[in-house]
Amino acid sequence: MRDFSSDHRWLSINTATVRKQGDLLSIIDACTRKGIRAISPWRDQVAAVGLDATARAVRSGELALSGYCRGGMFPADPAKAAEVRDDNRRAVDEAAALGAACLVLVVGGLPQYSRPGSAPGKDIALARTQVEDGIGELLDHARKAGMPLAIEPLHPMYAADRACVNTMAHALDICDRLDPGRTGALGVAVDVYHVWWDPDLEAQIARAGTDRLLAFHVCDWLVPTTDLLLDRGMMGDGVIDIPRIRGWVEAQGFAGYSEVEIFSQANWWERPMDEVLDTCIERHRSAV
Amino acid sequence: MRDFSSDHRWLSINTATVRKQGDLLSIIDACTRKGIRAISPWRDQVAAVGLDATARAVRSGELALSGYCRGGMFPADPAKAAEVRDDNRRAVDEAAALGAACLVLVVGGLPQYSRPGSAPGKDIALARTQVEDGIGELLDHARKAGMPLAIEPLHPMYAADRACVNTMAHALDICDRLDPGRTGALGVAVDVYHVWWDPDLEAQIARAGTDRLLAFHVCDWLVPTTDLLLDRGMMGDGVIDIPRIRGWVEAQGFAGYSEVEIFSQANWWERPMDEVLDTCIERHRSAV
Repeated sequence: MRDFSSDHRWLSINTATVRKQGDLLSIIDACTRKGIRAISPWRDQVAAVGLDATARAVRSGELALSGYCRGGMFPADPAKAAEVRDDNRRAVDEAAALGAACLVLVVGGLPQYSRPGSAPGKDIALARTQVEDGIGELLDHARKAGMPLAIEPLHPMYAADRACVNTMAHALDICDRLDPGRTGALGVAVDVYHVWWDPDLEAQIARAGTDRLLAFHVCDWLVPTTDLLLDRGMMGDGVIDIPRIRGWVEAQGFAGYSEVEIFSQANWWERPMDEVLDTCIERHRSAV
Repeated sequence: MRDFSSDHRWLSINTATVRKQGDLLSIIDACTRKGIRAISPWRDQVAAVGLDATARAVRSGELALSGYCRGGMFPADPAKAAEVRDDNRRAVDEAAALGAACLVLVVGGLPQYSRPGSAPGKDIALARTQVEDGIGELLDHARKAGMPLAIEPLHPMYAADRACVNTMAHALDICDRLDPGRTGALGVAVDVYHVWWDPDLEAQIARAGTDRLLAFHVCDWLVPTTDLLLDRGMMGDGVIDIPRIRGWVEAQGFAGYSEVEIFSQANWWERPMDEVLDTCIERHRSAV
C-alpha cells in the first residue's frame, strides 16, 4: 500500500468539492498553485467556462483528469431515447477532449427522476434493465473514443432518484455481461461513501481486479448525516475506515489517484477554497 | 396472494406510527375501536404505562402482537456485556409476557452508537461479529421463553448508528449459522423500507422461506426524503412497489400481519391519531 503521509502526488480533487467557491478555471488555478496534480470536473462546471478554455487550462497546469463527471441517467421514457443517447455520447466526447482517465456513470434511478418528464413508475427492475441496455449501447461509442466507462454504484439511499445500481456486485455483474473479455473499456468507480457499509466489499473489490478498478473516490460518512445528498464529511471526520478500503483496492494493483469528492452544503461549501483544498491535502496524508 | 382490498383483518399497527399522539393505552383503545386486530408496541411505550397494564389492555382488546420492538444493540465495550445481555433478556421476557409473535432485533451499529459510552471505533466487521455473538447468546434464553427472534436488516444508511446488518442475505447467513435446523427460533423481519432497493430481494425472500419470515413491515420511501430517520411515507405516497414484495413474501407461505411502521416527524406524527389510523386502514386496502 502506498505511503500517502509525506506528499500528495496521488491526490485528485473532484471539483464539486469547491463548486460554490469559484468557477472551474479558478479551481484549476488553485489546484495548480498547491501542487495538486489531478482533478475530476463536472460537465456543468466545464460548460460554464467552455470546453476549449478548460482544455487549455488543464494543459497549462499539466493536470491529469482522474475522471469526468458524469454520464448516465439512462432510465427514461422511450420518447427520450435519443436525448439519453446523444447526451451520453457528448459526455464521452467531452471526456476524451479533456483527456480524462474515465467517464463516471451515475446510472439513474426510476425514469421520472432520471429524466424528468418521463412517466412515473415504481419498477426498479425495469429501470435496471434500461441502465444495462443504455450502457451497452454507449459502450460502442466509448470504445471508439478510447474512453473507459466507470459505473459508480451509489449508496442504496439513492436507488430511487439517482442510481439503481447500488452495490459493487451489481455493477460488476453488468461489467461481466457487457465486457466479458475485461478489455478495460468498462469498470467501476469505487467511492467509499457509497460502498463502505457492504459486507461483501472486500470480496467484490478482489473480483473487480485491476482491470475493472477505474477510479477511487473518498470522503467520509458523518453521524448524524443531516441531508441525504449534501452532508458528506471530510476524510477523518466520520466513521469510514478509509485506509482499510484503500488497502483492498491497492492490493488489486490499483495505482491511480485518490479523488476527494465532498458535497457539503452547510460546512465545506461555506469555507474559503484555499482552506478546503489545504484540508484535503492534510487529510489525504493523515486519513486516507 | 391475499386480497386486502375489502377488509383490514391482516393489518397491524406498529405503535411508533402514532407515538406522538397518545400513550400506548390510548393507541390500543383506538385500534380496538377501528377493528384493527394487531399491534406491535415499543418497549418505551410499554414501560410508560406498565407491562401489566399493557398486558391487560391487549387481552381486553383481544389484540394480537405481530411483534415487539425491540431487542438488539449488541456491539459494545466488553465492560457493557452484562448490560447488553440483561437488557436483551428482559426484552425477550416482556415479549413473552405480552404474547408477541416475535421479538424484533435492531442489532446495532458501531459500539459508540449502539451502546453510548463505548469506545469509538470504525471496525464494522468487528461490530458484525459482536452482533452475531450476541444473537447466539440471546437465542438460548429466547428458546427457553418460546420467543422467536426476528433479525431486521436495516437500510444501509443506518449501518453506522443503528444496525450493521443491512441486507437480507447477511441476516439469513446469520440465521443459517445459528439455527441451521430452521427450528423457527430465529428468522427475519422484512421491512420494505429497508430492503426494497436490493436487487437480490426476491431471491433472498425465497431463501428465507416460511420458516424464517417472521414479520412483514410496510411504509413507503419518499422522494425526496428529508430526514434519514423520521421521514417515512404512508404506503402509496412513495416509490416502493409494496404489492410486488408482499407477493414474494406470501409466495413463500407467509400468512401473517402486514405491520405499518411509519416514523414521520413533520407529517403523520402531526396529525390526529384517528386520521392516521384511518389512512393506514385505507392504504392497507389500496396500496399494500
